[in-house]
Amino acid sequence: MKYQFDLDVLFGKLKELKIKRVGLVLPEGLKIYADYISSELKKQGYDVIVSGNFNYGACDVPSFDFDKECDCLVNFGHASLPIESNIPLIFIEVDFIFPYMEVLKNNINFLKKEGKIVGLVATVNYVRELPKVKEYLESEGFEALIGIGDVRVKYPGQVLGCNFSSALSVSDNVDFFIFAGEGRFHPLGVAISTEKKVFAFDCDGIYSLNDYKDKILKERFGAIFRAKDSKKYGIIVSSKKGQKRMKLAKILKKKIEDSGLAADIILIDEVSPDKLYGFDYDSFVICACPRIGIDDAKRYKKPLLTPKELEILLDGKEEYIMDQIEQSDF
Amino acid sequence: MKYQFDLDVLFGKLKELKIKRVGLVLPEGLKIYADYISSELKKQGYDVIVSGNFNYGACDVPSFDFDKECDCLVNFGHASLPIESNIPLIFIEVDFIFPYMEVLKNNINFLKKEGKIVGLVATVNYVRELPKVKEYLESEGFEALIGIGDVRVKYPGQVLGCNFSSALSVSDNVDFFIFAGEGRFHPLGVAISTEKKVFAFDCDGIYSLNDYKDKILKERFGAIFRAKDSKKYGIIVSSKKGQKRMKLAKILKKKIEDSGLAADIILIDEVSPDKLYGFDYDSFVICACPRIGIDDAKRYKKPLLTPKELEILLDGKEEYIMDQIEQSDF
Repeated sequence: MKYQFDLDVLFGKLKELKIKRVGLVLPEGLKIYADYISSELKKQGYDVIVSGNFNYGACDVPSFDFDKECDCLVNFGHASLPIESNIPLIFIEVDFIFPYMEVLKNNINFLKKEGKIVGLVATVNYVRELPKVKEYLESEGFEALIGIGDVRVKYPGQVLGCNFSSALSVSDNVDFFIFAGEGRFHPLGVAISTEKKVFAFDCDGIYSLNDYKDKILKERFGAIFRAKDSKKYGIIVSSKKGQKRMKLAKILKKKIEDSGLAADIILIDEVSPDKLYGFDYDSFVICACPRIGIDDAKRYKKPLLTPKELEILLDGKEEYIMDQIEQSDF
Repeated sequence: MKYQFDLDVLFGKLKELKIKRVGLVLPEGLKIYADYISSELKKQGYDVIVSGNFNYGACDVPSFDFDKECDCLVNFGHASLPIESNIPLIFIEVDFIFPYMEVLKNNINFLKKEGKIVGLVATVNYVRELPKVKEYLESEGFEALIGIGDVRVKYPGQVLGCNFSSALSVSDNVDFFIFAGEGRFHPLGVAISTEKKVFAFDCDGIYSLNDYKDKILKERFGAIFRAKDSKKYGIIVSSKKGQKRMKLAKILKKKIEDSGLAADIILIDEVSPDKLYGFDYDSFVICACPRIGIDDAKRYKKPLLTPKELEILLDGKEEYIMDQIEQSDF
């Protein structure tokens, strides 16, 4: 087994909450352990319902159907988010070891050319590695800052795909950022929202997000341009509880209608290209996960805009602002 | 516009039920009219939320999230089913003209060799065409029977993908069946459940379902054989209200455990191969739409069994019984 699950912590919480029926929610990489975790829970006398849905984050709380079958939902691999729910949401974090410490060390002289003050950010799975990274960087003469985010992030330095507040809180004071984690979307978001240089790591070494950011921004302005003659907008809201920006969607609907155009709110379990394919709307505005419109936009035949991109289109705003999910959007 | 929508009927029902906020649910072929139907509703003063999810039938009632946003759900293209719901479910049927009347006439002498008494079945979109088909067949010397189904089918002769009770009610008295509709799954279900010859139509003419039935049954017994050494079963329940056979799933879970094997219930919005890919269960039992295990089984890497197929495996039953959804399964 690749991961160690601290099920004793879970058993303790379940006992404390007097849970009988556990709903188990796992991201794709951990689904393979569903039967193992379930069997351990059943040995302790719990009933288990496994969620078969995809799980993309703490925001991705399955629909109310689970509330009828379970006394709580246990999500593995993500940190807690403030989400309204009828039943308790238990988050069991899974820590990964940052595998690129050697790569960082090999590139330290390169980084020294970028400045002296560095901001550190990470996804939740790597956030406990940041003090180690900070210690190393300070031993090399850097000053390393780890910012405190807003109510939607639990740990200093933690970023979500839809929340870069911990980066923004130190952005003015740093020369560049280092991202500890995997994938390009999180550091891309840091690069767009802070406008600072961001460095991340992969098997090939260290890389800057700035070229990728320029490419993505070109694509985003292309999408805004393609959407400019749209008469009918579909405003997509996901029923996933931590992404369900219905309040924002209603504001955008009114904004579009006030511009003399038509708009419908489309409620959807999980957004995918084939689900939007049949509709006759000219463009879509994504009030679900910001990543859908940016990372996956090319898989859709019609332009997808983020709420902020819609403002660029309708209000003629010039500055590109990264879409983030705010508590006030719900 | 390819279809005529009788929106006056809908407006009448909405007025009668004092609805303000309409939830609009459309199958793929009608999604293109979402913005048109929505604009007509908005002209009448209604608020509209469009479902972006796939819709495969009257059974496919979206999750409880819609109940918070809408005062009713309007489903186009399907006949009503008895489904428990917090908000009224309104079904607006869409009639199609049976396009194969000429093909039927051209093959009438061929059909005369098959017998004298014919059972007529159709999907809901074609069910109002059956009297015309019956009249023609009787003018050609056939006796044509249209059976009455159980509580889950609304019209004489109507079959669902999970209910062949109208066919079964006349099966003993007919020489063969004629299916008015499109696609192979419904007539396949009639062929398997009645064991009579079934004829359907497509652009190439008339065709018998019997070879296809033999091929599918071979595949089904292949899946049962592949599943025979399974130690861990995932029992799939869909959260779609008209497919959510939770009671049946719990019975099957106990049955599997009583056989000394392990089983978990997996609750899922919409079943798809990629959602099951990550799990480590050896086989799955599909308590959602029966079609998933039969029509789509090859898209899945692990064996999918229907509840009836699990009985063949565990109890050594020899007779193949088509999976149907019963009211008592919920």
